[in-house]
Amino acid sequence: MDPSVFAAMTRKSNPIDISSKETLQHLIDHYDNFLFDCDGVVWLGDELIPGAAEFIQLLVDNGKQLAFVTNNSSNSRNTYFQKFARLGIPNITKDMIYPTCYSAALEVRDQLKIPLGSKIWILGEHGIEEELQEMGYVTLGCNDPKLNNLDLDSSILEVDPEVRAVVVGSTKDFNYMRISSTLQYLLYNDKSIPFIGCNIDKTYPGPRGLTLPAGGSVVNYMAFTSERNFINVGKPSGQFLNIILQDRQFDRDRTLMIGDTLYTDVKFGNDGQLGDGRGSLLVLSGGTKLKDLQKLIESGGSKEDLIPSYYAESLGQLAEVYGVEK
Amino acid sequence: MDPSVFAAMTRKSNPIDISSKETLQHLIDHYDNFLFDCDGVVWLGDELIPGAAEFIQLLVDNGKQLAFVTNNSSNSRNTYFQKFARLGIPNITKDMIYPTCYSAALEVRDQLKIPLGSKIWILGEHGIEEELQEMGYVTLGCNDPKLNNLDLDSSILEVDPEVRAVVVGSTKDFNYMRISSTLQYLLYNDKSIPFIGCNIDKTYPGPRGLTLPAGGSVVNYMAFTSERNFINVGKPSGQFLNIILQDRQFDRDRTLMIGDTLYTDVKFGNDGQLGDGRGSLLVLSGGTKLKDLQKLIESGGSKEDLIPSYYAESLGQLAEVYGVEK
Repeated sequence: MDPSVFAAMTRKSNPIDISSKETLQHLIDHYDNFLFDCDGVVWLGDELIPGAAEFIQLLVDNGKQLAFVTNNSSNSRNTYFQKFARLGIPNITKDMIYPTCYSAALEVRDQLKIPLGSKIWILGEHGIEEELQEMGYVTLGCNDPKLNNLDLDSSILEVDPEVRAVVVGSTKDFNYMRISSTLQYLLYNDKSIPFIGCNIDKTYPGPRGLTLPAGGSVVNYMAFTSERNFINVGKPSGQFLNIILQDRQFDRDRTLMIGDTLYTDVKFGNDGQLGDGRGSLLVLSGGTKLKDLQKLIESGGSKEDLIPSYYAESLGQLAEVYGVEK
Repeated sequence: MDPSVFAAMTRKSNPIDISSKETLQHLIDHYDNFLFDCDGVVWLGDELIPGAAEFIQLLVDNGKQLAFVTNNSSNSRNTYFQKFARLGIPNITKDMIYPTCYSAALEVRDQLKIPLGSKIWILGEHGIEEELQEMGYVTLGCNDPKLNNLDLDSSILEVDPEVRAVVVGSTKDFNYMRISSTLQYLLYNDKSIPFIGCNIDKTYPGPRGLTLPAGGSVVNYMAFTSERNFINVGKPSGQFLNIILQDRQFDRDRTLMIGDTLYTDVKFGNDGQLGDGRGSLLVLSGGTKLKDLQKLIESGGSKEDLIPSYYAESLGQLAEVYGVEK
């Protein structure tokens, strides 16, 4: 296929199915940098998606640059680094990994310019605590055992006036006490404490085909209850993308986003004008099925920002199409 | 004051402050039936609002009909009946009490026409369970101990295909397992199981001036996560009002709604055209303060449906204005 034909095709709203080695080779030639979502793309929960490691290795062998961008805020970069090693994905270093607990910490320091040493309230998991602490902040809330019992007389419902920001992210450990104490901070002083949300994901693909609530549902709960907006530091935030591109020195026009979710991953690549406007690849190994994509395309033009430039069954299928030995 | 002047005044968007005995007497003469919200109006949590019992007695002495309409779904009519007695409010019978656990059960039977004996899934408290069981349904979920532990392998995450409706209401006992299992029912079979929400209340006034998350936040959580709308069986639902008026044989034109929340109670009275279009009285003893009302009035005409016909400090203040002996 002539490269210009390939480029022209991908400008249409019909995404290209990467199902032949020739198309895949063009794709690989077309981009220098590959951003990956993790859950539903590289792994499902604690299981590596078959062939994902081989496809990543193929890109490394072809001299490509990688970054892993996950809206999950529960695990720090250190924890993810261990997970990549445990699952047998080679050549991954900590500076390639961008979970939203880290982007939340970057937001606190670099955008909100909150002085190091300040107190930050957390509704979420250890990852947020770890990244904020590593950066030099004092963390409150999170897994404080005082939040395990429903006790509306507890002093933890009194606002500490030194708290300078509230970070809300994924947690399976939420309860009425965690929600109620966080609400006090969000309402405090005419709602003036900055409110950071780690993602807007409604659900994620769980074990045995279950669809399970994701972090965005907790963020939305707090936004609804407090009647506040939040700063979204997860995909599809353009600011998050800018930070990654700058940090990794990736050329926007030569970068592709690979993900399994239309309204976060695909929109992140499309809104961010990656790959000269053709910078999103949807894989069907996570929360989005082919029928969802078809429905979206049939629904017409109003959701153009959610339509990927390319799609494929999975990273494993791409490795197979390329003929990589397992 | 000439009664026609009084009527004309209340047609304006500026609510009348019921602060003189003369105005109060006109109000009492003007209505035969009084609907009361409970929390923030009659009591705050477990504390009777001083003077509330005396005001209610005053209405009874004047031959008025009463009903108590609460968006709280946690307690059944039986439990509320006990509470009225315990707090020393006389002459209240079970058939005057309308919590939304009861209106949810009415919805299941009379509107959705789900056969008695069917299974209903609950995310909420015992009140919903009690009312549905009293009506003749089999209840699942709710306080099932299997939902206390986060176990994504639990059989409780498998949908029972015989469930015919999902009812979601207030609960302080929610956790990831309760949310996740409820989500399975809401997504099941192309989202075809009816989804009833007991209220839309974001927050309620808690102890020590705390603003705490209310049942509507749980309902909204499930609506967000499942990407579904729900049938609201709480205030300001007009269908709920119709059921009460019919059940109690109240003349709509001679009925006043007294409550502490603008977007539920006041809207319920206004949208429902109670009192010939002047049927809402706001008390400031709960979640709404005078400054909130002022802000609303100053914001102009777009929220006319939230502006009460009358307002007063509290039921106790009304009793005092009338000169009732405590």
